[in-house]
Amino acid sequence: VGSPKPVRMPSLSEDEMVERIRGALGGGFEADGLRDDAAVLGLPPGADALVVSVDSVVEGVHFDLGLSSPSDVGWKALMRALSDLAAMGARPLGAVVALCLPGLEQGDELAQAVMEGVAEAVAASGCPVVGGDVSGANQLTLAVTVLGLADDGDPVARSGARPGDLLVVTGPCGGSAAGLRLLGAGQFCGAAVERHRRPAARLAEGVAARRAGAHAMIDISDGLALDLHRLADASGVGFALTEVPVDQEATVAEALGGGEDYELVVAIDPADADVLLRSLAAVGPARSVVIGEVLPTPSARSLDGQPLARLGFQHGAARPPA
Amino acid sequence: VGSPKPVRMPSLSEDEMVERIRGALGGGFEADGLRDDAAVLGLPPGADALVVSVDSVVEGVHFDLGLSSPSDVGWKALMRALSDLAAMGARPLGAVVALCLPGLEQGDELAQAVMEGVAEAVAASGCPVVGGDVSGANQLTLAVTVLGLADDGDPVARSGARPGDLLVVTGPCGGSAAGLRLLGAGQFCGAAVERHRRPAARLAEGVAARRAGAHAMIDISDGLALDLHRLADASGVGFALTEVPVDQEATVAEALGGGEDYELVVAIDPADADVLLRSLAAVGPARSVVIGEVLPTPSARSLDGQPLARLGFQHGAARPPA
Repeated sequence: VGSPKPVRMPSLSEDEMVERIRGALGGGFEADGLRDDAAVLGLPPGADALVVSVDSVVEGVHFDLGLSSPSDVGWKALMRALSDLAAMGARPLGAVVALCLPGLEQGDELAQAVMEGVAEAVAASGCPVVGGDVSGANQLTLAVTVLGLADDGDPVARSGARPGDLLVVTGPCGGSAAGLRLLGAGQFCGAAVERHRRPAARLAEGVAARRAGAHAMIDISDGLALDLHRLADASGVGFALTEVPVDQEATVAEALGGGEDYELVVAIDPADADVLLRSLAAVGPARSVVIGEVLPTPSARSLDGQPLARLGFQHGAARPPA
Repeated sequence: VGSPKPVRMPSLSEDEMVERIRGALGGGFEADGLRDDAAVLGLPPGADALVVSVDSVVEGVHFDLGLSSPSDVGWKALMRALSDLAAMGARPLGAVVALCLPGLEQGDELAQAVMEGVAEAVAASGCPVVGGDVSGANQLTLAVTVLGLADDGDPVARSGARPGDLLVVTGPCGGSAAGLRLLGAGQFCGAAVERHRRPAARLAEGVAARRAGAHAMIDISDGLALDLHRLADASGVGFALTEVPVDQEATVAEALGGGEDYELVVAIDPADADVLLRSLAAVGPARSVVIGEVLPTPSARSLDGQPLARLGFQHGAARPPA
């Protein structure tokens, strides 16, 4: 499979880089985490199941350093991974970060800027970074693994939706895609741009939905339509949508296929829907919307009576780098 | 920081790729792990602390696909991460794998070959892969996060070595570096080559050393000398080495600075050393050697009375891609 590509190596040694990163993370990370071979993470009494997820972001695939700052990249890498915990109704316990980056002369500054964004997401989410790893590479890449607990119940899978369930989304969609479009057109501020650069994982909403009795959940990382199809695939069901909550600055196409909104889709018994909507409003802005219902026939998947395509971002294939 | 590099995208969609990888992992991974947003990992009753580590391997930095097969890369990526658990005296509970790879026409075959190597390491180590993520990238990169438990005691840090402790290494060093040298010279088989391609994490040895009362441990990932210096740095001590266990095919320089041997260095009270050596012999071949002792003065670090340099591989800087 050919010889290795030339690699620009970081200008600092691995040990020096780890020291810098420890500095950038400041109070947001556990003191011994990056000093030993492995981090030690305390578990609360009675913890019987751990929720674990990993997500990578790769320069040129998931982001463009011309449109996102290194600290935006760090922020989003952690939030994106935390969003998978949110979708299970888990609260975060800790994260570990594998950072690969080009060794430009300013390689250490790049690492520091990325980790500052991670530290800001640590502060916003309450999830500490407890360990990490640094390596040279051609492309800036972060792989973030998050660990969480569903303290007082079972994690919510994407496979539990039942015919008759209502489908609820925790907020308007398409804002991130609209922000990316506006960034590409040279507009560097505004709510949608902020949404693209600094999305928030719906952690409190995920826990609230689990406690309200959610049958199934998924986070909208790749597009409302695609992620809803995935939930339906896993549950062996269909759906009929009657509503698409569209972000103020977004188009309907962006709301359906844009991705990176990190809102949650919840399938819940109609009898529990009121409690769910009140619980969601109690932990965040009242933006949740019933978008439709779950159908028994897996092939029946519609929006306003028309078949709904699997619109969204398949990181492998569908969308060119922005 | 410039525009993104051109990216060869995988020819399969992300969902299709995840299906292929699930196939390659076969029985070695938990059924629901890659199907949901996050994996759920059961914890044994009474578990109060989790040991967590992440390690990346990057094409052109940590390996060369001309010298290692894709399945060798997958094997070593998991073993390398597991070695950090071994160095804490922890037993593995599960791993998650973030795979980034170029989308050549045969991109799916590359992913499958890598994951077959991971699956072989799963079978050899008993550590299941419970979740993962796939993304396009220019370089083949794996970031492996491992989770473990020190069931019946506390994890062993690298910072606990005390003056007067004996230093024990679990086996001869330099074999992996010798194997890499032989591979570069066109020799594609033999014990050292095998050692380079398919190293084993000393998991049973790590648990045995913890139970025998080890004060400090570190795994030899970057070189006996460098990793011993790191243990001494963390413990605030010096050392006097009288012995270097050299692999049959290796030079002394390779044994001191070669790295990727994944043997463990253990610091232990002399009164416990006999129990340690017997315990190590009980779980593997009797290859452990007392190599010297811990000194109170941090600046006193010698081999046969001569100062010992920090020989080894700093992934950021010291060694060109092999």
